[in-house]
Amino acid sequence: MRNAAFGVKRGRHAAVPFLVGGTDTLWREVSVAQQERAIRTRNAILAAAAEVFDEYHYEAASITDILNRAGVTKGALYFHFPSKEALAQGVMAAQARALELRLEPAGLQTLIDINLRIAHEMRTNTLLRAGVRLSAAVQRSVGISELAPFRLWTELFSSQLTAAKEKGELLQHVDPQQLARLIVSSYTGVQQVCALFDTLAELPEQITALWRVILPGIAVPGVLPHLRLDSTHAELMERQRLLPGTFEVETDG
Amino acid sequence: MRNAAFGVKRGRHAAVPFLVGGTDTLWREVSVAQQERAIRTRNAILAAAAEVFDEYHYEAASITDILNRAGVTKGALYFHFPSKEALAQGVMAAQARALELRLEPAGLQTLIDINLRIAHEMRTNTLLRAGVRLSAAVQRSVGISELAPFRLWTELFSSQLTAAKEKGELLQHVDPQQLARLIVSSYTGVQQVCALFDTLAELPEQITALWRVILPGIAVPGVLPHLRLDSTHAELMERQRLLPGTFEVETDG
Repeated sequence: MRNAAFGVKRGRHAAVPFLVGGTDTLWREVSVAQQERAIRTRNAILAAAAEVFDEYHYEAASITDILNRAGVTKGALYFHFPSKEALAQGVMAAQARALELRLEPAGLQTLIDINLRIAHEMRTNTLLRAGVRLSAAVQRSVGISELAPFRLWTELFSSQLTAAKEKGELLQHVDPQQLARLIVSSYTGVQQVCALFDTLAELPEQITALWRVILPGIAVPGVLPHLRLDSTHAELMERQRLLPGTFEVETDG
Repeated sequence: MRNAAFGVKRGRHAAVPFLVGGTDTLWREVSVAQQERAIRTRNAILAAAAEVFDEYHYEAASITDILNRAGVTKGALYFHFPSKEALAQGVMAAQARALELRLEPAGLQTLIDINLRIAHEMRTNTLLRAGVRLSAAVQRSVGISELAPFRLWTELFSSQLTAAKEKGELLQHVDPQQLARLIVSSYTGVQQVCALFDTLAELPEQITALWRVILPGIAVPGVLPHLRLDSTHAELMERQRLLPGTFEVETDG
């Protein structure tokens, strides 16, 4: 089943394109099993790496520690991630995959909801938190660069703002692309200051405050009273009507 | 001469308080010379450290390199900064001292000017740039913590916003302290994304865009047309009427 959730392109069926239309049943079954095991192993390594990068700083994180937590062989780890840099880059790249974001109906409310989802899950979702923090803090200090997450979030926010503009929610002079970059940047700063002061629990209310300040400068006045800025995590999940388990492998063409 | 510029308390007369009212002329002169040499040495080390931390990332920066650039002895360096961590913390702490900010007349325009001054000088002022970047990026990754700069900037912005509120520039519901933290955070994020993408030259226009978005949500409508959001660096320096060389040692009580 397809849906409009973000990340669907990176779902399991994207990882096993060769399955579609295959004819050799035996080979197919073995491949599916191998492929699934490889995906599970890779995910276990990423989850363990996220935990370790989250608990220690990047430099202090040890591959041995990641290996022990992931419960995989050294060979398996190095097959998927040949170095600590590769592990950090894997965690950074996976940050958006750690959420399944519903992107419709596109517009201001969905963009606000996405911002609040991320803010809420920064506390509980280790892969998201480690990925975001590594992206914001590690690059310059260790010389590994991963700008893709910033580009990805900017693109995602931009598409929501473009839809908002088409729906007449935004003021005439607002440039969706520019504004998307500004919101991603501001979000990053607010998140980072919360992390530095060890007050990530306050992040949702800080992001609500951010939106309260910027909305009058970007939205038409008539829209403002209809926007929910302080949804709880439960309300967000309900509104986004997430359907877990719908990302099936498309084994039959 | 005293003025309202930020940092005056850290000026030379703060470093040599014993000079005021001293009576032993010979001792005084030797002490002044020693004191001044110590300050020059410390500043030379900080300037060299800022250059090295700015060019390399924190981990790759070498004390030998800093030593060579500062042109001081190893003993002098370790007297002032016993470790690389201490050097980084010295650079972080000196970031605000790298500017002499005029804080009056306190209010929205001065706060905007301060934001733009920092944005402009991030390109040319190595001590400011290295200090800001280290504060935002290094702490978690190397385990050294320096939250003082965030507190200092938040306090400074907060005092400007409190004055703005007293002058009737801000909307009734705005909390200067909360808003100060939000602006410091957003500024940090915008600056950091520019740094990551190696586009610090765009920082002033990005900060102008940030203020354009947030002002309608915080300022009374009548104030908006009177605010300058896109001043050049020359205009800022002119408006702040900086008087270099006015921070005299108060040798006579």
